[in-house]
Amino acid sequence: MKIIHYLEAEPKRFDANNVKGVTGRVVIGKLDGAKNFCMRIFELSEKGYSPRHSHEWEHEILIHSGKGEVLSDEKWVPVTNGHVVFIPGNEDHQIRNAGKDPLIFACLIPSGFPEL
Amino acid sequence: MKIIHYLEAEPKRFDANNVKGVTGRVVIGKLDGAKNFCMRIFELSEKGYSPRHSHEWEHEILIHSGKGEVLSDEKWVPVTNGHVVFIPGNEDHQIRNAGKDPLIFACLIPSGFPEL
Repeated sequence: MKIIHYLEAEPKRFDANNVKGVTGRVVIGKLDGAKNFCMRIFELSEKGYSPRHSHEWEHEILIHSGKGEVLSDEKWVPVTNGHVVFIPGNEDHQIRNAGKDPLIFACLIPSGFPEL
Repeated sequence: MKIIHYLEAEPKRFDANNVKGVTGRVVIGKLDGAKNFCMRIFELSEKGYSPRHSHEWEHEILIHSGKGEVLSDEKWVPVTNGHVVFIPGNEDHQIRNAGKDPLIFACLIPSGFPEL
């Protein structure tokens, strides 16, 4: 059994043309022996956003804290702690921070794709 | 895309000899088209606990809020918001509330097993 706080996992920072203020951590993955799916925790800083994109694998997301917005069918839908988001494969999506505090969420993906 | 607050999902309550004060909800599952893994959200009331057991499938857990303890190798390990727990298949486990507020956590399992 592995028990850690997510902040103990190694952070990877993303800042580029299409992504801003994003820190990601693989907290449960193939190195832990997780064969079926992978849990990542993301922090988006104030005004941060993930890339707008789509890919063949799905996302299962739980908003942990902060205030965010999820792009769904060209509309920004507000989310906060306790919201869950299922993004099927090949569906366009983007997440952005809509508050002052970091937006923190878990985003899980099936195995066999890049963990981060 | 599915976006809900977890409280919108139908609750199922568990109270028996080996489980107390547990409410579970399937928030992303096969009915949503999630083919690879399933997200459930559990609330344990004050003094509530999940059954002590083991089974062939793994758990990937994120503590959302509250204070809890996880039984790991006969020791109770404290956890609170932001802790993640990976329980490999066939490993004995139990979770209990160790505070006054509800202990709320996401617990994900691979597809092909009972969702709740």
